[in-house]
Amino acid sequence: MVAAALIAVDWGTTTARAALVGHDGRVLDTRQAPLGIQSVRDGRFAVALDALLGDWRGLNVRRLASGMIGSRQGWVEAPYVECPASIDDLARQLVNTPGGELVVVPGLLLHGEDGLPDVMRGEETQLAGSVGDDETVLAVLPGTHSKWAHVEGRLLLGFATFMTGELYAVLLAHSILGRLAQATAASATPGHAFERGVAQGLRDGALSHLAFGARTLALTGALDGRDVADWLSGLLIGHEIRHAREWARGRGLSCERARVIGADALVGRYSAALALAGIAAEPGPPDAAVCGLVRIARHAGWKLEQNA
Amino acid sequence: MVAAALIAVDWGTTTARAALVGHDGRVLDTRQAPLGIQSVRDGRFAVALDALLGDWRGLNVRRLASGMIGSRQGWVEAPYVECPASIDDLARQLVNTPGGELVVVPGLLLHGEDGLPDVMRGEETQLAGSVGDDETVLAVLPGTHSKWAHVEGRLLLGFATFMTGELYAVLLAHSILGRLAQATAASATPGHAFERGVAQGLRDGALSHLAFGARTLALTGALDGRDVADWLSGLLIGHEIRHAREWARGRGLSCERARVIGADALVGRYSAALALAGIAAEPGPPDAAVCGLVRIARHAGWKLEQNA
Repeated sequence: MVAAALIAVDWGTTTARAALVGHDGRVLDTRQAPLGIQSVRDGRFAVALDALLGDWRGLNVRRLASGMIGSRQGWVEAPYVECPASIDDLARQLVNTPGGELVVVPGLLLHGEDGLPDVMRGEETQLAGSVGDDETVLAVLPGTHSKWAHVEGRLLLGFATFMTGELYAVLLAHSILGRLAQATAASATPGHAFERGVAQGLRDGALSHLAFGARTLALTGALDGRDVADWLSGLLIGHEIRHAREWARGRGLSCERARVIGADALVGRYSAALALAGIAAEPGPPDAAVCGLVRIARHAGWKLEQNA
Repeated sequence: MVAAALIAVDWGTTTARAALVGHDGRVLDTRQAPLGIQSVRDGRFAVALDALLGDWRGLNVRRLASGMIGSRQGWVEAPYVECPASIDDLARQLVNTPGGELVVVPGLLLHGEDGLPDVMRGEETQLAGSVGDDETVLAVLPGTHSKWAHVEGRLLLGFATFMTGELYAVLLAHSILGRLAQATAASATPGHAFERGVAQGLRDGALSHLAFGARTLALTGALDGRDVADWLSGLLIGHEIRHAREWARGRGLSCERARVIGADALVGRYSAALALAGIAAEPGPPDAAVCGLVRIARHAGWKLEQNA
């Protein structure tokens, strides 16, 4: 058996995932726990890490983490690195927890051309694990706060956030749009209502106007109550794709294809929506965060090929 | 003293307002109560109306109402009239409550050019009370669901809804954008942060991206926590104005001026934002609903000039 060389930790808001990586860079084993930073009380991150690692605690290997664990609300604040940034820039600005339990990858800060700052934490590492040295890629990481990114090899040139997942959840739970929506079991393959929503979202218009359609379509019988949630999901994703494509074109990027990085269900939804926009979806690696952490460790000069 | 000729009731979701109108069309007295349709239990609308009217109950004058009281959740459903619609169309399709206690003005339904239906209830009456026979007006009624309308004399040609007020409330209360927002007393005159938000909203971009600025500006110290709510308010209103202007231009309407109909505080905010967009704001009449109910009553052939 290959010996362990690195413990890679993807530590987000709700979940913490750890992977044991061998000297050949492959994953030997994985563990995860609902120990995201929002569930850690009174700064007891060391206890949470021990619980996550279990019997890996005693291994004499280095530990590298990415995600919200490096935020102001996390274990140690890893100051944002300014974008454009290379993997070397990230590797040069790793931050240690006070007791040296963990090394943390910094997030990225961008001063957007629209005058607004933008930030990411964790996605920079997933991107580092998803794009090869000789590739130019338009990437999307769907989620609560979806990120679109422009990556050339080891360089992350720009990105933009869309609050798509959070808007979907908040509008359904707390706005008038949820009133006529009937709950259904989420289906793995989105249906016709989702596609109708995407088509609507790909057209021009203000989201604050278009979203009202989730009410008026149901009110007039043009949409079944059981389809309201799927239509709204499609609308928000279509709207995101429309504007992200404009953003990418403004950067001179080809929009023929996009690399979709994330969990299966969301990758499926986004791939279906991208197809409707005429953009071919390429799935990213399923373990993008681990791949990125291994790559950043190597750029930081960590010798994974022999015992550290 | 002029004798009473009509009781005009503006009955919405949260509040009910009644006005006693004289033979000369002027308001003699007003009453209001927190008896909006959402606070009326078990269909006890007759009791609520008696409580609102008090000793006006015994007056031998007709009663005309507009607003959500005519919705499916109200006292009696007054089916939507299709837009474009004239004041005569509204007057011909008044609906009586089962016991004849009240006559109700119908709302409007539009099949929008963007493929989405749109609806209003109550605003059609405020518009009827705000636009003269010989005027062509671009009007805005700010609120939870802002309405923009194209009115020519007695004819309402088209309208569009923007969920601006509801998005503001829901995002601040339930999304990540509220986390860095510090509560402040609402000021009558919106300040610099509001204007910054308006300017941002008047630029191009997806709301799901732009709104994230309420977090990133605060996170990077470019916006004080006490200014987050005002910035977001400005952003949403600016975004609404940008898209409503496109909508109006698409209809061949001049956007040099807009009539702003509603409560003082919101009219102030919208007027300030419109000015930044180069649109002159004209305030509508403060009692637009009552003016509209009087006008619709006359078009229905109700003789206000003598005892009914």
